[in-house]
Amino acid sequence: MTTEGSDRPRAADTARGGSGGWLEHPPAQHGWEFPPEEYRRRLDATRRRMAEAQIDCLFLTSEKNIRYLAGFHSQTWVSPTRPRYVLLPLTGEPVAVVPTSNVPGMRATSWIEDLRAWPAPRPADDGISLVIEALAELAGPRGRIAAEIGPEMRVQMPIVDLLRIRAARGSDFVDAGPVIRPVRMVKSALEVARMREIAALASEAFIRLGPQLRAGLTEREVARILHGLLIELGADSVPYLIPVSGPHGYEQINMGPTDRRLETGDLLIIDLGATWRGYFCDFDRNFALGRAADEMRAAYARVFEATEAGLAAVKPGRTAAEVWGAMAAVVDPSGRRDTPVGRMGHGLGLDLTEPPSLAPDDATVLEPGMVITLEPSLTLPGLGGLARRLMVHEENLVVTATGCELLTRRAPPALPVV
Amino acid sequence: MTTEGSDRPRAADTARGGSGGWLEHPPAQHGWEFPPEEYRRRLDATRRRMAEAQIDCLFLTSEKNIRYLAGFHSQTWVSPTRPRYVLLPLTGEPVAVVPTSNVPGMRATSWIEDLRAWPAPRPADDGISLVIEALAELAGPRGRIAAEIGPEMRVQMPIVDLLRIRAARGSDFVDAGPVIRPVRMVKSALEVARMREIAALASEAFIRLGPQLRAGLTEREVARILHGLLIELGADSVPYLIPVSGPHGYEQINMGPTDRRLETGDLLIIDLGATWRGYFCDFDRNFALGRAADEMRAAYARVFEATEAGLAAVKPGRTAAEVWGAMAAVVDPSGRRDTPVGRMGHGLGLDLTEPPSLAPDDATVLEPGMVITLEPSLTLPGLGGLARRLMVHEENLVVTATGCELLTRRAPPALPVV
Repeated sequence: MTTEGSDRPRAADTARGGSGGWLEHPPAQHGWEFPPEEYRRRLDATRRRMAEAQIDCLFLTSEKNIRYLAGFHSQTWVSPTRPRYVLLPLTGEPVAVVPTSNVPGMRATSWIEDLRAWPAPRPADDGISLVIEALAELAGPRGRIAAEIGPEMRVQMPIVDLLRIRAARGSDFVDAGPVIRPVRMVKSALEVARMREIAALASEAFIRLGPQLRAGLTEREVARILHGLLIELGADSVPYLIPVSGPHGYEQINMGPTDRRLETGDLLIIDLGATWRGYFCDFDRNFALGRAADEMRAAYARVFEATEAGLAAVKPGRTAAEVWGAMAAVVDPSGRRDTPVGRMGHGLGLDLTEPPSLAPDDATVLEPGMVITLEPSLTLPGLGGLARRLMVHEENLVVTATGCELLTRRAPPALPVV
Repeated sequence: MTTEGSDRPRAADTARGGSGGWLEHPPAQHGWEFPPEEYRRRLDATRRRMAEAQIDCLFLTSEKNIRYLAGFHSQTWVSPTRPRYVLLPLTGEPVAVVPTSNVPGMRATSWIEDLRAWPAPRPADDGISLVIEALAELAGPRGRIAAEIGPEMRVQMPIVDLLRIRAARGSDFVDAGPVIRPVRMVKSALEVARMREIAALASEAFIRLGPQLRAGLTEREVARILHGLLIELGADSVPYLIPVSGPHGYEQINMGPTDRRLETGDLLIIDLGATWRGYFCDFDRNFALGRAADEMRAAYARVFEATEAGLAAVKPGRTAAEVWGAMAAVVDPSGRRDTPVGRMGHGLGLDLTEPPSLAPDDATVLEPGMVITLEPSLTLPGLGGLARRLMVHEENLVVTATGCELLTRRAPPALPVV
């Protein structure tokens, strides 16, 4: 066990709203990706919701929630071998239980002082006895523990070990979603700045890509050119880059790229999720190769107009469902809604897709700081025996006090022909 | 519900080893990433182990296991919103329960015919009633169901839903690891070919990087240059690229990159996990900037020699622990073993790190086709109050009938000074 002793003030101070603390004395070379105020904001907001929900301790295992609340961020999550655990009590000091190999990284990037380590991988006890001991310290034998077990969340540890912890405590976990989801949904100015950066950078990459597109390139080559532009312009990672093409459009937007060669008359869509300092953009662009059928031009104009309607509808106080409604009314005034995409936009942040969903049954009320995508889509009838074809358009925005600010550079109003 | 009807022969044929079937009549434009024989091999090997373990149905939710067994592969897994489920019974047709938006992708890339879809996201029932129904069909009310609940595995669905399925069936899941792990561990010639490709391509990228390294570059700039080279040379994705530098070496290898500028006298390590057609390489390279202290040269020579010892030790029939022992004896003949890395190599494939671990307690017996990394490391004493420093070296190999074949281009025997 490695227990860090240091003279950094205690996180417990933040629960008391004390004036002293690590807030005033950040370590000189801390390597934190945000200033102490940002972590205090997140911690305070989370603890307020924990108190309301009568939760005594959060039990976190996922890359994004640990990054968000504890600060630890590393590419090491790509490996499924070693789990990590952060235990955040309602009051008092949090505890991180991490592999020995992650101790320097936790020290460098997280404000959590109480680190307990084991030499992972050790399948017989991959930190679980340390977790059980720490939960008993932080929440007592009967405290309510919330874990990442609900919708749109993933527990990033072996489930046999989660069940072992549950058995040791003799009680079920409750869902941490209602505590974490609303906090992460509203971005701070510092978070929005990162998303503005990646959206601007990716917009520029798309603009530089346009003149390089031509018949004869394969979808994979298009992906490679755009990926290269993004890295050159300063993106950190490109986890999602999907060009899909076809002579009469596309029937899906989540598969590929393939070795199919672009041909004159093709419709090409590229959907893109790239990151800068941890935060995603997620938007797409459509291109017609050489010429565009009238039907394609009209469909593009329709989803562009739907996006305009969405932009006009976004205001604090409106619901996600209302914004969906504004776009749906343009996409198909008759009220038909049969695209397989299932919604017309979603939240965005440390994850490519986050709550809320712009869908008829999502009553989330928009607040300043929420970052969302508008993603209207429509279905064209299949031609010549083809499956039905889609037209999808997407932009990213942040909700402001009076409406919204577009983060992406607005796509052209007419289908670009390249 | 979408149930696919097609004239493709049934997967059930493969369990009978029948001569007819989809094997002989693959769809012309199937988009499968491997030929039917490869999926039949995987399916047969998995079913043999299912029979031995008395498992009636595999319940799969993870990107890599679904790609491996069902063929479906898409970047859409980056989004945590929509889960997917593949149910593979011991005999008879498997069933995939997927979001409506994934149906075209399943049709294009998977050999599974029986697709059942729901309009995700739908948090109240994200495919769960379909899963419960299908499990009852495939395994009856009392069949033993194996899920990805064990070590080094992640269940990629909300755990409340997993528990709901367990409650509906009234019985625990058993661990699918003992069935899937040994099958995935031994790569086919087709899989090894992909790993040879990415290892060769990344080796070339490192060689082209060398002359571009110089004092004044930041670690982030180094990452950007190497990322660009990898994409230019044809890598599909670069999920893991970590340069770490310091005037007296590095104390960890899983954090960063940072904005630290390289200085003359620095030691720089770059650890890299890149993919080609789904398969990873995972190896590192060390560079000294301008000059190298004798201590660094000696440490590098030591881990290089340890890797040589590992390469000589790898043979079918040897255990992972024995290969560890051969390297450990060179790293520190006195038997001390105190690096935080925790092992000296690991399996590699669709994941950056897979079983086995080259560690003293891993008794996995090596077989031809296993792809592993050799990753000896040693600890140097800290200088001038610094934490203890590491020297880590890594190569990738495939076990052959008589020994091994190196997949990476061997690092130079002396620490390269750039």
